[in-house]
Amino acid sequence: MDKIRVGILGSTGSVGQRYVNMLRDHPWFEVAALSASRDSVGKTYKEAAKWFLDRDMPVECAEMKVIPADQKAFKAEKVELVFSALPSEVAKTAEAEMAEAGFTVVADTGAHRMDPDVPILIPEVNSEHLLALKEQRSRRKGIIVTLSNCTALGLAISLKPVQKGFGLRRVLVSTMQAVSGAGYFGVPSMAIVDNLIPYIKNEEEKVAQEILKILGEYKNGFKFAKIKVGASCQRVGVLDGHTEAVFLETEKPATPEEVKACMRAFEGEPQRLKLPSAPIPPIIVREEIDRPQPRLDRMAGSPERAKGMATVVGRVRSESALDNGIKYVMLSHNTIRGAAGNAILIAELLKAKGII
Amino acid sequence: MDKIRVGILGSTGSVGQRYVNMLRDHPWFEVAALSASRDSVGKTYKEAAKWFLDRDMPVECAEMKVIPADQKAFKAEKVELVFSALPSEVAKTAEAEMAEAGFTVVADTGAHRMDPDVPILIPEVNSEHLLALKEQRSRRKGIIVTLSNCTALGLAISLKPVQKGFGLRRVLVSTMQAVSGAGYFGVPSMAIVDNLIPYIKNEEEKVAQEILKILGEYKNGFKFAKIKVGASCQRVGVLDGHTEAVFLETEKPATPEEVKACMRAFEGEPQRLKLPSAPIPPIIVREEIDRPQPRLDRMAGSPERAKGMATVVGRVRSESALDNGIKYVMLSHNTIRGAAGNAILIAELLKAKGII
Amino acid sequence: MDKIRVGILGSTGSVGQRYVNMLRDHPWFEVAALSASRDSVGKTYKEAAKWFLDRDMPVECAEMKVIPADQKAFKAEKVELVFSALPSEVAKTAEAEMAEAGFTVVADTGAHRMDPDVPILIPEVNSEHLLALKEQRSRRKGIIVTLSNCTALGLAISLKPVQKGFGLRRVLVSTMQAVSGAGYFGVPSMAIVDNLIPYIKNEEEKVAQEILKILGEYKNGFKFAKIKVGASCQRVGVLDGHTEAVFLETEKPATPEEVKACMRAFEGEPQRLKLPSAPIPPIIVREEIDRPQPRLDRMAGSPERAKGMATVVGRVRSESALDNGIKYVMLSHNTIRGAAGNAILIAELLKAKGII
Amino acid sequence: MDKIRVGILGSTGSVGQRYVNMLRDHPWFEVAALSASRDSVGKTYKEAAKWFLDRDMPVECAEMKVIPADQKAFKAEKVELVFSALPSEVAKTAEAEMAEAGFTVVADTGAHRMDPDVPILIPEVNSEHLLALKEQRSRRKGIIVTLSNCTALGLAISLKPVQKGFGLRRVLVSTMQAVSGAGYFGVPSMAIVDNLIPYIKNEEEKVAQEILKILGEYKNGFKFAKIKVGASCQRVGVLDGHTEAVFLETEKPATPEEVKACMRAFEGEPQRLKLPSAPIPPIIVREEIDRPQPRLDRMAGSPERAKGMATVVGRVRSESALDNGIKYVMLSHNTIRGAAGNAILIAELLKAKGII
Repeated sequence: MDKIRVGILGSTGSVGQRYVNMLRDHPWFEVAALSASRDSVGKTYKEAAKWFLDRDMPVECAEMKVIPADQKAFKAEKVELVFSALPSEVAKTAEAEMAEAGFTVVADTGAHRMDPDVPILIPEVNSEHLLALKEQRSRRKGIIVTLSNCTALGLAISLKPVQKGFGLRRVLVSTMQAVSGAGYFGVPSMAIVDNLIPYIKNEEEKVAQEILKILGEYKNGFKFAKIKVGASCQRVGVLDGHTEAVFLETEKPATPEEVKACMRAFEGEPQRLKLPSAPIPPIIVREEIDRPQPRLDRMAGSPERAKGMATVVGRVRSESALDNGIKYVMLSHNTIRGAAGNAILIAELLKAKGII
Repeated sequence: MDKIRVGILGSTGSVGQRYVNMLRDHPWFEVAALSASRDSVGKTYKEAAKWFLDRDMPVECAEMKVIPADQKAFKAEKVELVFSALPSEVAKTAEAEMAEAGFTVVADTGAHRMDPDVPILIPEVNSEHLLALKEQRSRRKGIIVTLSNCTALGLAISLKPVQKGFGLRRVLVSTMQAVSGAGYFGVPSMAIVDNLIPYIKNEEEKVAQEILKILGEYKNGFKFAKIKVGASCQRVGVLDGHTEAVFLETEKPATPEEVKACMRAFEGEPQRLKLPSAPIPPIIVREEIDRPQPRLDRMAGSPERAKGMATVVGRVRSESALDNGIKYVMLSHNTIRGAAGNAILIAELLKAKGII
Repeated sequence: MDKIRVGILGSTGSVGQRYVNMLRDHPWFEVAALSASRDSVGKTYKEAAKWFLDRDMPVECAEMKVIPADQKAFKAEKVELVFSALPSEVAKTAEAEMAEAGFTVVADTGAHRMDPDVPILIPEVNSEHLLALKEQRSRRKGIIVTLSNCTALGLAISLKPVQKGFGLRRVLVSTMQAVSGAGYFGVPSMAIVDNLIPYIKNEEEKVAQEILKILGEYKNGFKFAKIKVGASCQRVGVLDGHTEAVFLETEKPATPEEVKACMRAFEGEPQRLKLPSAPIPPIIVREEIDRPQPRLDRMAGSPERAKGMATVVGRVRSESALDNGIKYVMLSHNTIRGAAGNAILIAELLKAKGII
Repeated sequence: MDKIRVGILGSTGSVGQRYVNMLRDHPWFEVAALSASRDSVGKTYKEAAKWFLDRDMPVECAEMKVIPADQKAFKAEKVELVFSALPSEVAKTAEAEMAEAGFTVVADTGAHRMDPDVPILIPEVNSEHLLALKEQRSRRKGIIVTLSNCTALGLAISLKPVQKGFGLRRVLVSTMQAVSGAGYFGVPSMAIVDNLIPYIKNEEEKVAQEILKILGEYKNGFKFAKIKVGASCQRVGVLDGHTEAVFLETEKPATPEEVKACMRAFEGEPQRLKLPSAPIPPIIVREEIDRPQPRLDRMAGSPERAKGMATVVGRVRSESALDNGIKYVMLSHNTIRGAAGNAILIAELLKAKGII
């Protein structure tokens, strides 16, 4: 089988590097185009990207020439599938142009998430939202699928089985987010050593909004879930892995044991279809009193290709301050599951469903 | 005026050092006795304590001989007032013995907090709880006053004006606590570098319980406040200063501006009595989008002697996921306001009220 | 006495903020002009500077309007003395223009350090280099005095008494430098959490070169010291305070006790003239086996105004791998002693000597 | 082939866990006995060890019962080979007893390193020192082989090709060592956040001494190398990986290019014998200006089983302050290459040579 040729928009940044790293030896995809900003165009990827992962850059990408984020350049490379890790200010136009030109665009950016015909897709959670693509196809040659903000993503995975099993009335979440979420240069060390920052621009609004779209239904348009969601977002001095303290009220009462059981039993389309990057199981529930911890648990997920793709939950307990109250701690790798990894899993799902 | 002679139980640990540091040149108190565990007895304080503060050890304490945590030894030094920073396993008996022997004990330990005749005192919040001391006096020669757990302490200060102004129905808090809260050796660097720990033993229970006693009334016994309180406690790689993301429901609706106004207007007995260590104002409300931050705000408080004694609140905003919902971020220095500093402020209050 | 009106070039950056902070209530100087890059001009200093120090911005500066780095603008504010904390790419021209226009410029930048008539001044070490100013005056209206690179500065202070007492043949230094040395945005947290960076651009060359000029003589031009100096410079995850492991060979043999004695006895012009920011003593030699440590020792220096101005030396011991070998560990606060503080001390010296 | 049964002394500590982790699926060895201190005996390994690695504990070890560090208990488990990661105070006697009882002991402790018949073995560097085992065998049933201190180990590997190629006269090294080197509980976070500690007990002496034995010869006893070695050892806030700034004088002049070439060409017995844990190549020389960095380079080494076993060298340059001066930066994973990994490589060498 010929591999699908893939292009990456914004390939030199911190999420871009994750794409390059995770597509190494992918059974279905091969990297055919690496784009970056103007001053990188024409350089080799090795020259253009300040590589910051501990595994060395894949040799096959190191000598590739960086090209512009331009549909003609991508066509010239016979790209079929585009992963976008563009900065938000340029993402909106660039992604729309790519979709107009017929590409399938999987976007790890906020630009099109709330568009009425664009799904925010987490393959385990709402693969049925792919129906929205029909609506898109009626209007343009290509399609756009987005993934949610990295903070909402792991949270939505952990909420889905609870929603199915017991119903959700209210969700309050306080996050402790990794510095990589702001990009390689986003958080100066002067800002975070012996410190934390109790603010991340637009994050609380995104979490509250996106969760409702993701956990809602698609029937001739998106019907948002009726859940009250509130967030307080903080940045801490951790490299990778967003940890979230979650408080929730279920519709029907549930014991911690019941919640853990439904999380453990949870699986979605990627697991049923045995997609290459699907973590099995998608949610790992730990019983230790002091887990999950970002450094120990962020790379959880098997098989090998799904490392960093599992959502890890721990400390599931009752919360008497809420009606039918449950609280737990959730961890998700923000640049793997919360970005490049989820995008690749979406692409695998599109392929398995025959959409690409 | 002769200064009151003070003894410190557990003087070599991280809170003990804070006492020694903060009692430097105190206008009303002088350090007369430093006690520590058996293997330190007989050494000079300088030899016994691995000093870890950036300001050098006060010269007057450096050459003092460490004595045992024993009422006879304390009597020999003419001690009147005892600050306890003992480890919890030995605190219960040692503090009770000191009180039986006639000392006034101010205890920064959990041992006696929930005793029915012992107040958990935060001078700004519940100075009227000193009434409970009459009950104690009827039973023994001395008295015990405790301060709350460091996580509950700053939280209670920030809640008090809201409780007075609008009533409180529900409080949910997610904490990001400093490593110093576990004592100097409490958190290995291997556990916290590039990591956080979502668990602190018994902390969530303490917060939920102590808040209710502190914000309750004393009328022939303590009447606990009727508020639903829930907590999720986490440790992060910050040296000093507990940051807390607070969500709450008020009885009467309140706008963020009204909440900020009542916090800013708040003052208590220490401010009215102009106690030496009273921060003026007790609560500092910041308007920047990204404050409070532990490294920048933990030493807030004026005058000079009250550095680290102010509670800093920021990001006060509405929370639509709760009824009459408000959320904010709160910061309190856990070993100053949350420990030694609050104990000294209690002692100042006792003195100003003629109790010692 | 009227205070001397002072202007700061590059006032919003990390060294610029240190100037503003340290000039608070200065007995001889007052801040009259704050300049910054174009997009800050016209804003208040409060709006333009993202303040990052734990002590709040001085009120008198908060509302000052930021002006351009332009001699006319500075003249309009009746500035006499200019402190430069400009980025190196613009420093050369801007500082020269200011000096041409008649200002006294004290520059914390590398631009003019190696000019043949410009001293690199450390008031305790080489105040006699002020003679070079005559040569400058013969050519232009104003003068430029520079301070050395922050890594060379503390090192030179620690070497001076040894050079005087025993002669120096060889110096090898391996540094562990604080992130603030690269400016607020200089070191991303992604680069330094659980890591160190064994490279600082041009730093090793600067150290080797500047030490020789500083420890040399001025007699109708600078005569460089004849010492072999080599450096290996590394960045570590410390906020402030450069720590340096120093190996040296003296001309005459010296025991560790003799080296410590000569360091302790050392004093310079600032101490003799009792300049307001002069640390007394300039070098603090500690006997503990594990000091100096940056977090504990970087703010060393008394009186109050000289906090962070002392050079702290510890672990002075023999090094048998070198002839007449001595090794020690040295610590110096890189943005206080190594930048703003040394510049202010130079200005105080210029004032005390009647040069301004 | 039956696997050799292996016992681990001190299996629950930070190096002990590395052994357990690295012996997972080893082609030649299998873990047959896990010993720990008295209060762990009888527990399962899972209960006794607070596991701190990000890869989960091997299932086959999790349920093993911890046994005492006793030769009878080890015999009962049919152990042939013993790895010791005991704390130094108990290592001396326990290791000697095991060797008397006939076991082959590979010891990652200082207890027997300087014994006249015990080699400090680094398989790439001095495999010919195995000759000393004959002398041991003449005296007792079993044998002891030690590995050096983790700081000396990587340094010795990097020095060996230079010694062979150009001769070594003088070595000065300044280290920046990881916190894991002190054991899991060794460095409190309070000691190292925003800080470094310029002292590690006995480390400088060990480095200076052990290097000479390792780089010396064995001919009817050990002849120490004639090199002047001096060290300054510091601890920094890095989890794993010791970084060392090395200055050296060679006998014959060498350019940086020649030094790099000889390091790159270097190989030893493990590479020639294709031992399972042998890194190929043993020394990786990087050309980037800012490498090696501990977080990026500590896991270097291929094949998979040799991850963390390579020594990484960078920034090789001339040092004009020394005669025939060269300087470089070296990185070695202190608990893999510097401890468990080197011990396993020694065991593989013993097996390949028919000694076990």
